[in-house]
Amino acid sequence: MSEFVTTPKPPYYAVIFTSLKIEEDKGYSKMANKMIELASKHEGFLGVESAREELGITVSYWRDEESIIKWKANLAHIQAQKIGRELWYKKYKIRIAKVQRDYEIF
Amino acid sequence: MSEFVTTPKPPYYAVIFTSLKIEEDKGYSKMANKMIELASKHEGFLGVESAREELGITVSYWRDEESIIKWKANLAHIQAQKIGRELWYKKYKIRIAKVQRDYEIF
Repeated sequence: MSEFVTTPKPPYYAVIFTSLKIEEDKGYSKMANKMIELASKHEGFLGVESAREELGITVSYWRDEESIIKWKANLAHIQAQKIGRELWYKKYKIRIAKVQRDYEIF
Repeated sequence: MSEFVTTPKPPYYAVIFTSLKIEEDKGYSKMANKMIELASKHEGFLGVESAREELGITVSYWRDEESIIKWKANLAHIQAQKIGRELWYKKYKIRIAKVQRDYEIF
């Protein structure tokens, strides 16, 4: 993705997902797109920014903690997380953070 | 970079730097490495995770807000920020966030 997310005035939330993937795709790309599509329909979802070299970093932005908790509990998402742990990721780390201030230059 | 950062038990801070760069390097890589080296000597710096496709995402982790403010005010860093705005970046956005919880799988 090459898009910056337009987020509201802080505070809002960021979920920082850092991952190390296996080389092969094994259905990963298709599922990743499906999950972004699904997340974007969830209340409180503000957008997602993503980049991967060897390490992948995906930051999704959310209105509040409640939205993050609901998305984590979504059944299709739980299933994707399970496949992710078994099939796609060597390792991942998730950090839930409250954005306190932001600024941009362009 | 392909390294995960080992961060302490939350709370700690994340600076999420999202950027769109020009195509040419123009001294960018050298300066980026220099800034990471310099930041790593600052008190409170915990590490940095980075990936770039079209969009670049760099997340640096810090012990507290004071460390972030001191790093922002570092003279060599201020100079690099100025060159960055003038020479390397089409656009960037910085978000300062307090990490409230985290978990990892590996």
